[in-house]
Amino acid sequence: MEWIDGLGLFGAFLSAITFVPQVYKAWQTKSTGDLSVWMIFILLANVSTWLVYGIVKDDFAIILANSIILSLSLLLLYFKMTFKRNL
Amino acid sequence: MEWIDGLGLFGAFLSAITFVPQVYKAWQTKSTGDLSVWMIFILLANVSTWLVYGIVKDDFAIILANSIILSLSLLLLYFKMTFKRNL
Repeated sequence: MEWIDGLGLFGAFLSAITFVPQVYKAWQTKSTGDLSVWMIFILLANVSTWLVYGIVKDDFAIILANSIILSLSLLLLYFKMTFKRNL
Repeated sequence: MEWIDGLGLFGAFLSAITFVPQVYKAWQTKSTGDLSVWMIFILLANVSTWLVYGIVKDDFAIILANSIILSLSLLLLYFKMTFKRNL
């Protein structure tokens, strides 16, 4: 494996965990008023596109990272819809 | 250009604009209390990594998308640090 492929995997790992602290914070505070629902919608479209791209290109790192982000963004959307405090 | 490359460009476009509504909302409300600063930190590390990856791979779509996301996440970090209401 070239070092640049390692960097790509590291980037995919960082991408995958980007929304973990946001989901955790929303869950802890039960407050999502400052989160933009449009960010979440575009994020869903964004990761769905990359997921298809990864599947067609048969790129495991892209598939894995975007599956994780898709799950986290669906959770964020659920929290955004559920926690009505501070809307 | 293959259709899959077009899909990649579309994904890069969606990635680039993902944080536009969040930056706009933070600017409008002057409130960023529900935003996780750790999400922003990981996002900065994430897009910096992809930026290096794009530069080494000489991939214009990756460079452009991540330059935009880097600018937006720096703005988000600035707003997070500046708008102390609802921390």
